[in-house]
Amino acid sequence: MAKPGLTQARAPLTQDIETVNERGERSLVAIPAERPLTIYVDKRELVTLMTLGAHPEWLVIGYLRNQRFVSSLGEIESVTVDWEVGSAAVKTRSGIADIEERTSRRVVTTGCGQGSVFGGLMDEIESIALPPAAISQGQLYAIVNAIRLQESTYKSAGSVHGCALFRGDQMLLFVEDVGRHNAIDTIAGWLWLQQQDGALATDTSSFVFYTTGRLTSEMVIKSAQMGVPVAISRSGITQMGHAIAQRLGLCAIGRATGRHFLCYTAHERLVLQPELAPAAPLRAIA
Amino acid sequence: MAKPGLTQARAPLTQDIETVNERGERSLVAIPAERPLTIYVDKRELVTLMTLGAHPEWLVIGYLRNQRFVSSLGEIESVTVDWEVGSAAVKTRSGIADIEERTSRRVVTTGCGQGSVFGGLMDEIESIALPPAAISQGQLYAIVNAIRLQESTYKSAGSVHGCALFRGDQMLLFVEDVGRHNAIDTIAGWLWLQQQDGALATDTSSFVFYTTGRLTSEMVIKSAQMGVPVAISRSGITQMGHAIAQRLGLCAIGRATGRHFLCYTAHERLVLQPELAPAAPLRAIA
Repeated sequence: MAKPGLTQARAPLTQDIETVNERGERSLVAIPAERPLTIYVDKRELVTLMTLGAHPEWLVIGYLRNQRFVSSLGEIESVTVDWEVGSAAVKTRSGIADIEERTSRRVVTTGCGQGSVFGGLMDEIESIALPPAAISQGQLYAIVNAIRLQESTYKSAGSVHGCALFRGDQMLLFVEDVGRHNAIDTIAGWLWLQQQDGALATDTSSFVFYTTGRLTSEMVIKSAQMGVPVAISRSGITQMGHAIAQRLGLCAIGRATGRHFLCYTAHERLVLQPELAPAAPLRAIA
Repeated sequence: MAKPGLTQARAPLTQDIETVNERGERSLVAIPAERPLTIYVDKRELVTLMTLGAHPEWLVIGYLRNQRFVSSLGEIESVTVDWEVGSAAVKTRSGIADIEERTSRRVVTTGCGQGSVFGGLMDEIESIALPPAAISQGQLYAIVNAIRLQESTYKSAGSVHGCALFRGDQMLLFVEDVGRHNAIDTIAGWLWLQQQDGALATDTSSFVFYTTGRLTSEMVIKSAQMGVPVAISRSGITQMGHAIAQRLGLCAIGRATGRHFLCYTAHERLVLQPELAPAAPLRAIA
């Protein structure tokens, strides 16, 4: 299968702005970049994403995949990103069927970031079968620690969400964006390209998805769409995220910082090693 | 002008789920509710919002206002929310002009929450003139403290964004939602109703908007649409949020916790009282 032709567009990820603090001191502070990227499919305007802009080509591919505009990489001939005009021109080999009809229904969701899932995505949940897989408490701690050590735009400028894909406790890719849906779409696009190359196997049973943001319905669905059976968050979970993870049998773990966490769903996928946990807090005897 | 007829639909704001922690202990933990609310305008499906559901009628009115589907409350005859089916039926007095055309362009944005601004909103920025107004450092501290003391779904269940509207340092309304765009739209809807009633003046020069989330472009625009010239965040600012606040002369203040903050834009609107600031950290003399 022919590989899509991709540009490698680059743009600055932060910008310095002048601030005044509580002591009246002026200083330059870095904030994350945020730029519009309008996706055109065969010269038809599809959508404008607001993005940090680190990996726009992977983002576009992941977006098209997660919104199910394409079902195979072979459908994409090229993605040409031009930051001068904020455009991503996608050329397909034979068009996208029903693109008019498929963009007509709108669901506006909770998540940070892209927020919009075109109609019908929820219907597809039933068709997803996740591989049987487990995560051990030690592996979870290793993942949380790897994230802690990761250099990031967040550390220099704040105000971005981070996502990462792990195999076992090995970090495969770390992506940040002003919208975390862009971050997971970028991971999805990258993974797809890797799998087509044969650089990564299609077996995702040992894969783990990490996000700094909440586990909303969309984050859970997108993790499942990649075939990743475990999703970890520094933050919590929403009711729809919980309901969908439960239905999919996806192991959703939140509040993961240091050696603390809460496993929300598919508890059977978590191999507890309570001996690794910090000591329980002392309780006063009444 | 006739007041719109509104239901007062209510639904539980949290749900208890079973969790397992790092010591293998099972416990019930509250998570925020998240329910779809499909808005129908004169029986035409417009959009589905995912919301906590605390004030759906205000949310719908604020959404229609902020997306500029209506320019006057008098255009809305009634909003009928039915949680049984997750619907909000809006009846207008004489229809919404060009609704087809106005829903055809999509911009998917960064923010948590609704995320989508229908095309053309950015074009309107130039027409917004904010009232001349300032905020003092003492007032800022009082606002941050009022938020700290506020009882909230966040404190009981996490994973929601909070927004509030202040006049001076008096909190007028505090709203939470799984999406913070829903929270600010709810405030906008409530404010509009209050102003129609005469319960609040249309002069917004002493108003301040607070959000727990980042100051993205949409949060800044929506604050400005309410005529509120100061926006405060516990979090940071994105590049687009910064650019738009600068253009509007809106005073954007971030990283506001305790007695710390960073003023990002319209520094002239901030009346510094550095004597209220904590002492500067000691610096080693080289």
